[in-house]
Amino acid sequence: MKYDPERLFLVSNDDGIFSPGIRNLAEVASQYGEVQIIAPDRQQSAVGHSITVMDPLRVARFEMSNSMVGHAVNGTPADCVKLAHDQLLDRQPTMILSGINHGSNAGINIIYSGTVSAATEGTVLGYPSIAVSCTDFQEDADLTGCREAVERIIEYVLKNGLPKGVTLNLNVPPGPLRGIRWTRQGDSRYVEQYQRRIDPHDRPYYWITGRFEVLDQGEDLDVNVLKQGLASVTPIQYDLTSYKVYEEVKNRQL
Amino acid sequence: MKYDPERLFLVSNDDGIFSPGIRNLAEVASQYGEVQIIAPDRQQSAVGHSITVMDPLRVARFEMSNSMVGHAVNGTPADCVKLAHDQLLDRQPTMILSGINHGSNAGINIIYSGTVSAATEGTVLGYPSIAVSCTDFQEDADLTGCREAVERIIEYVLKNGLPKGVTLNLNVPPGPLRGIRWTRQGDSRYVEQYQRRIDPHDRPYYWITGRFEVLDQGEDLDVNVLKQGLASVTPIQYDLTSYKVYEEVKNRQL
Repeated sequence: MKYDPERLFLVSNDDGIFSPGIRNLAEVASQYGEVQIIAPDRQQSAVGHSITVMDPLRVARFEMSNSMVGHAVNGTPADCVKLAHDQLLDRQPTMILSGINHGSNAGINIIYSGTVSAATEGTVLGYPSIAVSCTDFQEDADLTGCREAVERIIEYVLKNGLPKGVTLNLNVPPGPLRGIRWTRQGDSRYVEQYQRRIDPHDRPYYWITGRFEVLDQGEDLDVNVLKQGLASVTPIQYDLTSYKVYEEVKNRQL
Repeated sequence: MKYDPERLFLVSNDDGIFSPGIRNLAEVASQYGEVQIIAPDRQQSAVGHSITVMDPLRVARFEMSNSMVGHAVNGTPADCVKLAHDQLLDRQPTMILSGINHGSNAGINIIYSGTVSAATEGTVLGYPSIAVSCTDFQEDADLTGCREAVERIIEYVLKNGLPKGVTLNLNVPPGPLRGIRWTRQGDSRYVEQYQRRIDPHDRPYYWITGRFEVLDQGEDLDVNVLKQGLASVTPIQYDLTSYKVYEEVKNRQL
């Protein structure tokens, strides 16, 4: 699918504009059309769908190591997408891409993910949007397979579109691509423990620590597909209603 | 349903431990069992499901205006619930309550809500959890109806429990309670615009502004039930999979 200058891709992330992941994502997108990079000016992991309401936002021009130009915002991933949509882009984007995150966003962890929230915000604003993560959190991870998976998903979305209210959440193992599977979100999560320490003034403080626990059975779950070394793509939505429970309880007296 | 000292209610919020809303929620819960208040030490609106991973957390004892004692945490609503579960509570809570938020959490806005995220975190950790918001954002709003609605929902949950993975999101208009309806999450949202200003050094900055737009048809949607002056309770889930779309696409080649 060849380059079309009419297309505009907005690229954001949560690791910050200086991360190798966003550079790779922008390079892949630039094969298909114009790219605008608008991303947080610093690491914003685990910010979830946070937005900045009590402080003003600022925007700075940023030259990337591959000579692309981006804009760095002193806000969250969702802020970047909102501000891009309302103020910074001179036309409507064809698609919004978030990532490539350095680290997996699968299982329950996606509710904490800034990467996913930038893409979800794109969906809220009405644009086809994709979150991309590499399961290797090292900054020098081999993103070959990620780049190929992103190409395939961009081409899929350019061809088929995405239903209203639905975002794609793509996770890819490092190294060459061995295949992509459609998946459901698993129930795996970080099991957190806090480490209690005492500061030099004899006061306690707490550091979060955690280990990822795969709790799921089911071959169609994101976490298990990733364990097999395949890439996983999950259609997710921001309508959080539990329809199953709603149907069961809706006539119960309160 | 009388007081039972075996019950423990963890109460948190996103407006901060000093807010009238959390005091009211703690008072209602204290009719049913022991209450522990563990909440952010400051306003945390719109933080979404953010958690603190790059800084340590601290906890301070806080005497509330109704002579209850709470603990203030320098973190987000989700941090408070995680830390309470792992470090601060001496036994497992019966239920987790978040709120009473000063302002509605209905429609799409719940994805940005710190109030909802504290309750969702409780659900992730396996506790029956309820988020409560008053649709009036004034701090001196009449919470009579809120308090009564919380009583009814606490009694409902003590009697029926909640299915795994499901949180209740309760919104109540100010004033006396006129009834509670089971609802679905609507598609209404804040339509944001940024106001561009120039600072004294000639540099631009952007303030978020917005107006709430009711986009929904449907009598069973949270926003429309609230418009009728009734309280709304929506069962929500943290499994974000769009099952409808998943079923449609799962056999498509990628």
